[in-house]
Amino acid sequence: MAQKPSIPKGTRDFSPNEMARRNYIFDTVKRVFQIYGFQQIETPAMENLSTLMGKYGEEGDKLLFKILNSGDYLSGVDSTELIQQNSQKLTTKISEKGLRYDLTVPFARYVVQYQNDLVFPFRRYQIQPVWRADRPQKGRYREFYQCDVDIIGSHSLLNEVELIQIVDQIYRNLGLRVILKMNNRKILAGIAETIGEADRIIDITVAIDKMDKIGIDKVNEELLLRGVSSEAILKLQPILNLSGDNIGKLSQIEQVIANSAIGMKGIDEMRTIFRYLASMNLESEIQLDLTLARGLNYYTGAIFEVKSKDVSIGSITGGGRYDDLTGIFGLPGVSGVGISFGADRIYDVMSQLDLFPKDTISAARVMFVNFGDKEEKYCLPILAALRREGISSEIYPDPDKMKKQMNYANRKGIKFVALAGESEIQEGMINLKNMESGEQQLLSAMDLVATLKG
Amino acid sequence: MAQKPSIPKGTRDFSPNEMARRNYIFDTVKRVFQIYGFQQIETPAMENLSTLMGKYGEEGDKLLFKILNSGDYLSGVDSTELIQQNSQKLTTKISEKGLRYDLTVPFARYVVQYQNDLVFPFRRYQIQPVWRADRPQKGRYREFYQCDVDIIGSHSLLNEVELIQIVDQIYRNLGLRVILKMNNRKILAGIAETIGEADRIIDITVAIDKMDKIGIDKVNEELLLRGVSSEAILKLQPILNLSGDNIGKLSQIEQVIANSAIGMKGIDEMRTIFRYLASMNLESEIQLDLTLARGLNYYTGAIFEVKSKDVSIGSITGGGRYDDLTGIFGLPGVSGVGISFGADRIYDVMSQLDLFPKDTISAARVMFVNFGDKEEKYCLPILAALRREGISSEIYPDPDKMKKQMNYANRKGIKFVALAGESEIQEGMINLKNMESGEQQLLSAMDLVATLKG
Repeated sequence: MAQKPSIPKGTRDFSPNEMARRNYIFDTVKRVFQIYGFQQIETPAMENLSTLMGKYGEEGDKLLFKILNSGDYLSGVDSTELIQQNSQKLTTKISEKGLRYDLTVPFARYVVQYQNDLVFPFRRYQIQPVWRADRPQKGRYREFYQCDVDIIGSHSLLNEVELIQIVDQIYRNLGLRVILKMNNRKILAGIAETIGEADRIIDITVAIDKMDKIGIDKVNEELLLRGVSSEAILKLQPILNLSGDNIGKLSQIEQVIANSAIGMKGIDEMRTIFRYLASMNLESEIQLDLTLARGLNYYTGAIFEVKSKDVSIGSITGGGRYDDLTGIFGLPGVSGVGISFGADRIYDVMSQLDLFPKDTISAARVMFVNFGDKEEKYCLPILAALRREGISSEIYPDPDKMKKQMNYANRKGIKFVALAGESEIQEGMINLKNMESGEQQLLSAMDLVATLKG
Repeated sequence: MAQKPSIPKGTRDFSPNEMARRNYIFDTVKRVFQIYGFQQIETPAMENLSTLMGKYGEEGDKLLFKILNSGDYLSGVDSTELIQQNSQKLTTKISEKGLRYDLTVPFARYVVQYQNDLVFPFRRYQIQPVWRADRPQKGRYREFYQCDVDIIGSHSLLNEVELIQIVDQIYRNLGLRVILKMNNRKILAGIAETIGEADRIIDITVAIDKMDKIGIDKVNEELLLRGVSSEAILKLQPILNLSGDNIGKLSQIEQVIANSAIGMKGIDEMRTIFRYLASMNLESEIQLDLTLARGLNYYTGAIFEVKSKDVSIGSITGGGRYDDLTGIFGLPGVSGVGISFGADRIYDVMSQLDLFPKDTISAARVMFVNFGDKEEKYCLPILAALRREGISSEIYPDPDKMKKQMNYANRKGIKFVALAGESEIQEGMINLKNMESGEQQLLSAMDLVATLKG
């Protein structure tokens, strides 16, 4: 096997330094989830295809990684079916399992499966990789991590508010400036209803989205071309011209959709959420944005999307309220709300802005140089003492040339090197070299521990 | 979809309480790895089948989960091949990727792929799930976690010693009494060579293994039946009757295999390792055990296996020295040594012995009861203050009946419940109830923070 080994396209290996930075993100996210009283669950990488199929649309089904049945998987397949050479049809015969595509559907399955054991409202978080057979491109991978946090079994808008607080706290802790955009499916439904085009939520949202780019005249033109009546377009004008702060915008929308019950419910929800948030000292900018159209096929209330203020990379966090996620698995009427943090994009943004703390490396704090048997014997108990104190430390395992050992410490980013040659041993001391400053100190074992702990 | 949802056999969901206990194990293991200066890497769940196939023997190849190629995977397959209905042959045409079977082969692939970027000796750890299409049974799963730690690129026996120290420290921290058995492939080779049966290492090891159960006469009989010459069997007798401590046993073996160069090298290695260990205050029992035969097809020096002293469940940790792991990927002559901790078995042992600390739960430390809008408004800033102090806390999101809210806290294992009704609000206080003792305290917000932090 002379061929250089490689990994499947769209997947990645993570080096020690990348892992240290990834763990910094995961730990920050986890810590906030925990402080807010969320509990972790994990589900298997493989789910039954009956669980996954039909949940992500036709396109999504195609992006599922499917696992070949074990053993002689063709034995039960009729030869006439084989000759048809229909990949899609054959798949159902030779594959029963797939890799999870997101954490949402496995979570819905989990809630239904254990509904009798769970305590509702169920506050869970889940941090695991997901897999999609998407065409790989910059910033889009076939294996990537999602960090999901959901409350299921409560209609209270306080849940939406807590998720926004979590977003704010996490990005504050990470040092990332973000803008959190919010929309509400009920308001969009109210607008569509008001202008007599209840089925055209998407068309209207897409059109509103283009306001900044093409201007109001072109938007109206496009709406007309998409089949929206001129009467409806007229009614829509105040919504295309929203201005002011979030509360002000809500009032303008309210005037238009005052006769839509569902629309007014949406206005009410958003007012409540904004009222809560007003007293909460958030750092993130919160912005009502009617063009936000993510997940319109399953979100039923608030919709969230978070973007970096400083790097243009698309959404780094998103979510919303869903009223019937578990219905597909036979448990209707359980409302929930959740958001998902995209660890890989957050990583890219933080790298680009150089936001990782300088000490986010995983190398040992100190390395003992190995001068040979006698010196090693002198060092080992001191090394053990450091480790007992929780100080990450190592000894170079071979009595290689000094230059090679120092090079090892240097390349790994080890900050201190401990040297004990004949003279240090005679004095009962250790020479501690700071690899950044070059400074050296002659220390007793006790002082060495104290210095490295500090 | 009325069918109750389920997960593939051999896989598991992990509930919040299970996750808390699993994380306790992972965190303990990780912490020790880090203190010993090991750095984490991660590799993708999917590897190219060319990387995985042929590395685990024919049986292993069958246990690989294979992933169906995306899209119209049959389009390139010749119809004559399809008609043959040969599952094994078809697999190579319709599947290019598989799920990783262990962490060792991906690690070898990683080392070769990044050989120019890595700093050798490379000390890495890796904690990720692996997948095997094994027949599921008690304690054997199709998805399970391995925690691997390896040093690659150094022949020093100090590496073996550090791994043993790591084993000792981890099980000490977990409170698990273990016995660490060691063998050495070179000694086994020396024995086989000495008795003129160089190819029969496995036969001999299997026979020695039965000493305790069937006695020396039956063992000799079996060796004869397996084709070992009576002359060889005679030479073997002292080794079948080893007694005394590890050093004593080594001396007895030495007398038998004194003429085998490789055997004497093995004796030497073990003496060195035991000499190091003698000064290290280990708690685990260390036992030289010639019957230990794990990984004889790739281990070339020391072999390790760890068992619980109190629960009979097989090996919970194992590993050894390998001299040519990366050779299969085109980088020969790089020696390494590593061990793997089986998190799932450790979990089972700890559960059985009830060794998890009582506070290994993930529930919030305190829950605020929700009495309605006014009371909620009073509680929210206090809740925020607790969270700022890093105290895991939540407020029940709806003003449900008191009994329902208390039941929620109780079932989740939340230790404290904070109550603020009209009278507490007037006094500017909070009533803190300890759910275990039933004790209640009337506290200011400041005192509440102090009490819950303690």
